[in-house]
Amino acid sequence: MINQTPNPNEKNAISKQVKTRLPRYYRYLKELLDAGIYRISSGKLARMMALTASQIRQDLNYFGCFGQQGYGYNVKYLFAQISEILGVNDKLTAVIIGVGNLGRAMAQSNIFLSRGINLVALFDKSPDMIGKEIAGMTVLNADTLEDFFREHHVDVAVLTLTSREALSMAKRLECAGVRGIWNFTNVEIPSMTNVSVMNVYMGDSLMQLCFDIRQRELGEDD
Amino acid sequence: MINQTPNPNEKNAISKQVKTRLPRYYRYLKELLDAGIYRISSGKLARMMALTASQIRQDLNYFGCFGQQGYGYNVKYLFAQISEILGVNDKLTAVIIGVGNLGRAMAQSNIFLSRGINLVALFDKSPDMIGKEIAGMTVLNADTLEDFFREHHVDVAVLTLTSREALSMAKRLECAGVRGIWNFTNVEIPSMTNVSVMNVYMGDSLMQLCFDIRQRELGEDD
Repeated sequence: MINQTPNPNEKNAISKQVKTRLPRYYRYLKELLDAGIYRISSGKLARMMALTASQIRQDLNYFGCFGQQGYGYNVKYLFAQISEILGVNDKLTAVIIGVGNLGRAMAQSNIFLSRGINLVALFDKSPDMIGKEIAGMTVLNADTLEDFFREHHVDVAVLTLTSREALSMAKRLECAGVRGIWNFTNVEIPSMTNVSVMNVYMGDSLMQLCFDIRQRELGEDD
Repeated sequence: MINQTPNPNEKNAISKQVKTRLPRYYRYLKELLDAGIYRISSGKLARMMALTASQIRQDLNYFGCFGQQGYGYNVKYLFAQISEILGVNDKLTAVIIGVGNLGRAMAQSNIFLSRGINLVALFDKSPDMIGKEIAGMTVLNADTLEDFFREHHVDVAVLTLTSREALSMAKRLECAGVRGIWNFTNVEIPSMTNVSVMNVYMGDSLMQLCFDIRQRELGEDD
């Protein structure tokens, strides 16, 4: 019986891994729908996603998404369920703070719209940027951010300003009532009581790639 | 003795987790150096990075980076070691394929230079883009990519073109002799025999953030 003692960290561990996989399910299911495929077995989905069928069943059961014996999963229904779990239907709103190269690129992409998120404003502190039209929006003065938040409901703030400004901006956003921060600066924003934070370090994946290249080379030298 | 049977997946699991943490060590150590801090205990580094001291020691021992009892780690030496492990000193070269918003943003950022990578060329297939000057480089015709690779050593290709073109471009790059692909399209590029692949889905972290926001809200409703 001792071997069956549950690991106290296990539930959290599963939940974190599943959380990471959910957006992948979303992507693959969307692809299937776009291709006109409305039914899929856990085995086939597993092969597509380089997972095992039992992993798929476990992940999806975890969220109450059950396949049917001999039929598999109804792709449309599963996609709707995953969308619901991920809050795609919640009509969240977002603002971008800092419209340098990356901020501008994001404003002009469909990264928000394709996930049901409404991009409602762009902010910058530079006089050169304030008042400019980008992606159909007029860039607002970052100093007036609090006014905007009082008048509009904002769920997500995208931080694409300089690293130096990241922490003070995060504090202002917390006070202004933002619900989530998607941070692209080099500064790690600590998690806050009322604000979800997702720190993204684009450079980290580049370094992991360089590390892989190096390891492969070292392996070849053996 | 049975309890000590090593888990065959354990080494890989550790190595993958450590691999993910290495760029974080790099970032934190760089910050310490920039702040003029040349010596740090594993405990202090652990608090900074929200890890445990024993995790830090284990990670760093894994790569032969040992701290000194009562002294801690020599930050400069440790940074040099981690840089070496990550291949920062290998003077890798990179090209960007697809200079839309994101490609342009990356070309104009210091994401490559700050990691010791030399960005040597930009490619696009659009006649409107070919010949344009971006970040001091003339955008080259993507059709001539193979010629360029024959004449220049290219380690990393950054894919910021459309998802539709991703897989065929990855195959061309493999044949042309690229060593790593940093993929920003929505298409998952499978790993290849001679090419390291890092698929980055910026939208996935946005969805994880939305999921967190939603979970927090559901928690509050309880």
